[in-house]
Amino acid sequence: MSNAEALRTDAWRVCQAALASVEPGRCVLRALKEMDLPGGRVWVVGMGKASARMAAACEQFFGERVAGGLVVTADGCAVPTSKVTVAEAGHPVPDERGMAAAGELAALAERTAEDDVLIVVISGGGSALAPLPSTGLDLTDIRKTASLLLRSGATVREMNAVRKHVEELKGGGLARRARAGHVESLILSDVVGDQVEAIASGPTAADSTTFRDAWEVLVGYGLEERVPPRVREHLRRGLAGEIRETVKVGDRTLQRVRHMIVGSGAEAASAAAQAAEELGYRALVLASTVEGEAREVGRVCAAVAQELSQRGRPVPPPAMIVLAGETTVTVHGGGRGGRNQELALSAALGIEGVDGALVCALGTDGRDGPTDAAGAMVDGRSTERMRAGGVEPRAALAENDAYPALQVAGDLLFTGPTGTNVADLYLIVAGREER
Amino acid sequence: MSNAEALRTDAWRVCQAALASVEPGRCVLRALKEMDLPGGRVWVVGMGKASARMAAACEQFFGERVAGGLVVTADGCAVPTSKVTVAEAGHPVPDERGMAAAGELAALAERTAEDDVLIVVISGGGSALAPLPSTGLDLTDIRKTASLLLRSGATVREMNAVRKHVEELKGGGLARRARAGHVESLILSDVVGDQVEAIASGPTAADSTTFRDAWEVLVGYGLEERVPPRVREHLRRGLAGEIRETVKVGDRTLQRVRHMIVGSGAEAASAAAQAAEELGYRALVLASTVEGEAREVGRVCAAVAQELSQRGRPVPPPAMIVLAGETTVTVHGGGRGGRNQELALSAALGIEGVDGALVCALGTDGRDGPTDAAGAMVDGRSTERMRAGGVEPRAALAENDAYPALQVAGDLLFTGPTGTNVADLYLIVAGREER
Repeated sequence: MSNAEALRTDAWRVCQAALASVEPGRCVLRALKEMDLPGGRVWVVGMGKASARMAAACEQFFGERVAGGLVVTADGCAVPTSKVTVAEAGHPVPDERGMAAAGELAALAERTAEDDVLIVVISGGGSALAPLPSTGLDLTDIRKTASLLLRSGATVREMNAVRKHVEELKGGGLARRARAGHVESLILSDVVGDQVEAIASGPTAADSTTFRDAWEVLVGYGLEERVPPRVREHLRRGLAGEIRETVKVGDRTLQRVRHMIVGSGAEAASAAAQAAEELGYRALVLASTVEGEAREVGRVCAAVAQELSQRGRPVPPPAMIVLAGETTVTVHGGGRGGRNQELALSAALGIEGVDGALVCALGTDGRDGPTDAAGAMVDGRSTERMRAGGVEPRAALAENDAYPALQVAGDLLFTGPTGTNVADLYLIVAGREER
Repeated sequence: MSNAEALRTDAWRVCQAALASVEPGRCVLRALKEMDLPGGRVWVVGMGKASARMAAACEQFFGERVAGGLVVTADGCAVPTSKVTVAEAGHPVPDERGMAAAGELAALAERTAEDDVLIVVISGGGSALAPLPSTGLDLTDIRKTASLLLRSGATVREMNAVRKHVEELKGGGLARRARAGHVESLILSDVVGDQVEAIASGPTAADSTTFRDAWEVLVGYGLEERVPPRVREHLRRGLAGEIRETVKVGDRTLQRVRHMIVGSGAEAASAAAQAAEELGYRALVLASTVEGEAREVGRVCAAVAQELSQRGRPVPPPAMIVLAGETTVTVHGGGRGGRNQELALSAALGIEGVDGALVCALGTDGRDGPTDAAGAMVDGRSTERMRAGGVEPRAALAENDAYPALQVAGDLLFTGPTGTNVADLYLIVAGREER
């Protein structure tokens, strides 16, 4: 095995260790073991792509104490459970199944008793999976509004401000309905920065936005006359104080609620660094909230790889620098790829000819963009392999066509669906012997 | 003094230490003291904005051994020397003064003797300052060709490939003319990656490009029929082998030549890290070849600042992470600013509300873009100060209008002309007490 291969093997082992550390069941068990929990019956509710796995882990931990529960997950994300019902629903477009399940979630929360423990398992995708329209609105109103906002270019925070004010479970709504004296919110975060109120639109979290904010978002994008009339009327009544606001910081309902981020990109990054150290690398976690245009972040990663390999800074090789985050791709071309592939292709150009350097970008859900790859791992010879395979890497990058370029270079990473979804993971690696 | 002010003061001291470390005279003296130099007469030639300062340092070091010399610098960059003549010439557009000086440089190199030492001082700007058209071409041909390439969007490497094949001093041409048995090339690098052949088009360096490459650049940009006919004819003769190629790796002429990068962004970064440590910070140099879109690099810097401040990674505060490089700005708006100001404004948005964090971006020549500022230093309250001053930071960024935003926030940095020019410097700082 050449040094280059050994480096790849190590990086891949580090990726796998990072993925294992954010497996939803493992995250929940790790958290529950460290928590100081009261006795009493346990109910498990929740929503999100990982919610079934999280619920199963709760059953494993609490055993006979689990009285029942319901989680809503995406099609194909169910796993076997014993007492907690798993409902599948539409994602990313909310559907009737999700609405029905959301209604049951609300009812279940209301049926809990003061001396019960309500465990709420929350993960990415939960926003779309459990839509419960406010009184007077229906699913079509919700979908239409969401679709208008999406096409307008509204930010996630802006979309959430509106969603929290036209739906019932979001913005702390689920917590408010619970009678249980203890509400433990276990959150697998797919949001950069891990803001609790942003993940699945914060069903158990204080909402920092108001009816006023929701309205101003619509006005800001010129949508106030384009949303369904019932939505407009609902928000107007909210503005007039005729409808109760979402749960706010300091609200008494939150006194019973604890939030715990059980897994996140920061967690995956820590696990990656630990695994790298076990393999004999000097490891540093550099950042866990990386955002920005994928190709530009890739260039910065390449500069760090160069410094490691060529100057032995900030630590001498063998070294691994770990980052986590979520980049974006501004699409100019009609190619195939994903944000991690694009980051990797750009990094490949940045480390062209550098020996013993590696940059890896991995989507923790195993699916990078609309492709079957999870990401890619590039080295100083990647561009050479691309050209040998008939692909000009700069042209591929210009066309957002990273997949075929990385494919001919043998640089794509495949994990299959991982069952988890936190931030993306980036590794910058410099090997020992090829300096 | 508040903690925030103390942090700024420290960062500013670090900037000043970094600038001092790459002062051209100091760089040259540091290098000469460490070199193993033969005896004999010393001649000093060179080109670039810092070449006069570098020549003065040579005179200081060699004293009476200096027989004479000539350096070409930009208007306003001359400093007093005793035996070395300082010529001023046009920059960035080459002029007659530069051409005359380039001719004298060539003649002077040819007059040196086998037992002489020829010191060649090279810095940024040298390419435009010393144009010596190849036989049969004139200054107008050179200017026209450069101007066409510039407007076509050619990369610096592509422009250099052409320039080296239509001019006489570039691509090792100056070294080839020298009779001196020892040619010591002292280079202050303004080029990311410090490739010797790229700085001032490598007057003493092996050229990795050929007449073929030069021709293909013209063809690639559709300029082969638009360049002056004499340029076309010159390159065609070169292609046909009728004109000698530039100096190539392994050429005997280079056996007498040594290159030393006496100052660069990497050097400035090292000095910054050392100064930070002396102030009690944990310091890491992360990268010295950063490139990319300024605002995106700013976002990455902000993510690193967050990690430092909020998670104490990769090292616990007080900490300073140092980078060097040169970003680019894709202009969308009609505002005022420079690449360092734009990076800083973007970082300000990324560290909004984060206490005890600071991001600083500084152009080492003291002039960031077409403004009087050298860069800027932002913290978690910068955006608040901008808004209080009536500037919406996101709108300012969208308009490439960083200067006024940073100005109202009191975040601009002013150094005046520093006399040096290496890469830009970026500091990411987290303070101790405000965590």
